[in-house]
Amino acid sequence: MVRRASADQISFRDELVAAALLVPSGVPGLFGRGAIFEEIRRRVDARISAAAAPDGALAISFPPLLPREQLETIGYLHSFPQLAGSVFSFDGDEAQALAQGERADRHEVWSEFQTMTELVLVPAACYPVYPAIAARGPLPEGGFVVDAGGGWVFRHEPSDDPARMQMFHQREIVRLGAPEEVRVWRDDWSQRGLELLESLGLDARRDRANDPFFGRAGRMLARNQREQELKLELLVPIAGEEPTAVASFNYHQDHFSSKFDLRLADGGVAHTACLGFGQERIVLALLRTHGLEPDAWPEAVRRELWPR
Amino acid sequence: MVRRASADQISFRDELVAAALLVPSGVPGLFGRGAIFEEIRRRVDARISAAAAPDGALAISFPPLLPREQLETIGYLHSFPQLAGSVFSFDGDEAQALAQGERADRHEVWSEFQTMTELVLVPAACYPVYPAIAARGPLPEGGFVVDAGGGWVFRHEPSDDPARMQMFHQREIVRLGAPEEVRVWRDDWSQRGLELLESLGLDARRDRANDPFFGRAGRMLARNQREQELKLELLVPIAGEEPTAVASFNYHQDHFSSKFDLRLADGGVAHTACLGFGQERIVLALLRTHGLEPDAWPEAVRRELWPR
Repeated sequence: MVRRASADQISFRDELVAAALLVPSGVPGLFGRGAIFEEIRRRVDARISAAAAPDGALAISFPPLLPREQLETIGYLHSFPQLAGSVFSFDGDEAQALAQGERADRHEVWSEFQTMTELVLVPAACYPVYPAIAARGPLPEGGFVVDAGGGWVFRHEPSDDPARMQMFHQREIVRLGAPEEVRVWRDDWSQRGLELLESLGLDARRDRANDPFFGRAGRMLARNQREQELKLELLVPIAGEEPTAVASFNYHQDHFSSKFDLRLADGGVAHTACLGFGQERIVLALLRTHGLEPDAWPEAVRRELWPR
Repeated sequence: MVRRASADQISFRDELVAAALLVPSGVPGLFGRGAIFEEIRRRVDARISAAAAPDGALAISFPPLLPREQLETIGYLHSFPQLAGSVFSFDGDEAQALAQGERADRHEVWSEFQTMTELVLVPAACYPVYPAIAARGPLPEGGFVVDAGGGWVFRHEPSDDPARMQMFHQREIVRLGAPEEVRVWRDDWSQRGLELLESLGLDARRDRANDPFFGRAGRMLARNQREQELKLELLVPIAGEEPTAVASFNYHQDHFSSKFDLRLADGGVAHTACLGFGQERIVLALLRTHGLEPDAWPEAVRRELWPR
C-alpha cells in the first residue's frame, strides 16, 4: 500500500527527477541519486561533522544490515512492526532452485522458496552501536560518544512523497553515560542542530514529538514519550502543507542500556541518547528552499557547505 | 551454514578485531568498521576515481536495495539463487503484531508473519544501472560510461574468512556501447586495474575466471564463461593459501542490454561490460601486506593513497 502524497509533493518529486537529482527505480521511495544530490548530501554530512567535532566521538561505521537477534532484543517488532524489513534467502536443492527461477521469470510469487536469515535491515542507524559498545565492558568515567556516520536505514513505508524514502541515510551520534549528562547532551544538541539548519538558510523550528508507534498500545507509548519530552524534532518546510522532521534528538533513558547491560564506570546502569539527521530530507529542504541549482544558492549558504 | 575458513584466515580476522579495524556484529561476515578501516577504504575509492577520470563517467549512486522485479528480469535466481537476499515485511493486524512480537521476544521463529515485499538486496552494484540508463532512450554515439560509486552489495555466504563478507562495498563502473568498444574498454581496464594494485604495493596477477554459478547447469555456464574469457579477475594474497579476487572485469555481451532493451544510437542492440573493485578486500590486502598501521606503510604506497 502506497502512502498518499499531496499534489505538491508529487510535483516536487517530478521536478527532482526531471533535473536528474533523483533517479526513479520503479518502486516508490527507492531512488538512485545524481552526482549533484550526492555532493550536497556529503557537504551536509561534513557540516554536521564540523558541528560534532567538540564531542570527540569514536567513529564506527555499520552496514545496512543488523543481526536479527538484536532487533528482537530491542523489541522493535512490538513498537514498529509495520516498518521493519527482514532478509530471507534460498536454502534449497537444484529442483527447487529451478522452480523458483521459473516463477521469477514469470514475475509470479516465489516467496515459498525463501527462508528467514539471521539478518534484518537496519531501522535506525544507532541500533548497532549499543551491543558494540556493551561488548567493550563498562563505560569510561564521563561516559562516551559514538559517531555512527551516515548509515543507510530502511523503513517500509512506500510513498510518492520524495521526503519519505524507504531507504535513506541517517547521520547518527550516540551519547552513553550518566542520566543527567546524557539528557543535557541531548538538549544542547537540539539547539546546536537548530542553529546548524538556520545557518543553511532553512526555516527550522524545534518541537516535542513522538515516534509512529504501532496500534492502540502504541498510542499510549506515544503520549508518554511526548509528556516526558523524550523526543525533540527539528521541522523544516519541504513540499506539502506541514513542515517535515529532518532531525531528531532522543533520550532513551535505560531502554537500550538495560537490554544490552550497558554499565557506567561505577557499575550503575547507563542511560543513552541519540541524534539523527535525515540527510536526504535536509538535501530536499535545501533544494526546495534555495532552488535546484546549488551554484545559484545564497552566498552565505554556499559558504557553510563549501567552506573556503 | 557457515563456510569453512582456514586457521590463517580466522587468526587474521581476530587480529583485525583486536586492532578495532573491524567490529564483530555476532553474525559471520557482518562487521562494523573502525575509523582507520573506513579512512583506507575511502582513500582506495579516491585512487580508483583518479584512475577512472579519463572515462568521463556519469555518476549515479544507488541504495543497497533493488526492485525485486529487476532481479527477476535479470534472471539472477537461476544463476545465483544461493547468494540472493529478499526483503520481507509485516502487513498484519494488531493481534498478529502482538503474536509476532512475543515470538521475537523469545528469539523463536516469526517468519510466518512476514510477506515478500517489492524489494531485494543489491547483489552486484551494476544491476540498478541498466534499467536506469535504458529509461533514457538509445545511447549516444560512442556509447556511455556510468560510475555507480561504491555501493553496498549483499551475498548470502556467511564465513569466518574476513575477506568473504555478507555485506560489502563494490566500486562499479559500467560501459555501454558497441560490442568492440565495450570489449576493448574491459580489456584496457583490467590492465589499468592491475597497475593500480601494483602501485599500492600489492602482489597482483590477472587471470580468467568464472562466477559461482549454482548447480549442475551452472558448471556449463562457468566453463563457457572461461572459454570465452568473459570474466577477468585480479588476484592478490590476503590470508589463506590461495590468492583472493579483489577486482573483476566482466564482458556481458547482450546479457543485460537484451533484457532492458538497451539500444545503440543506430538502433542496434548495445553490449555492456562492468568492472568491480571489492573495496573491503583491497583494504584487507593492504593491511595484510603492509601491516595494521597505515602510518608505517611504505612511503610509495602512502603517496598513492594520501597524495600531497
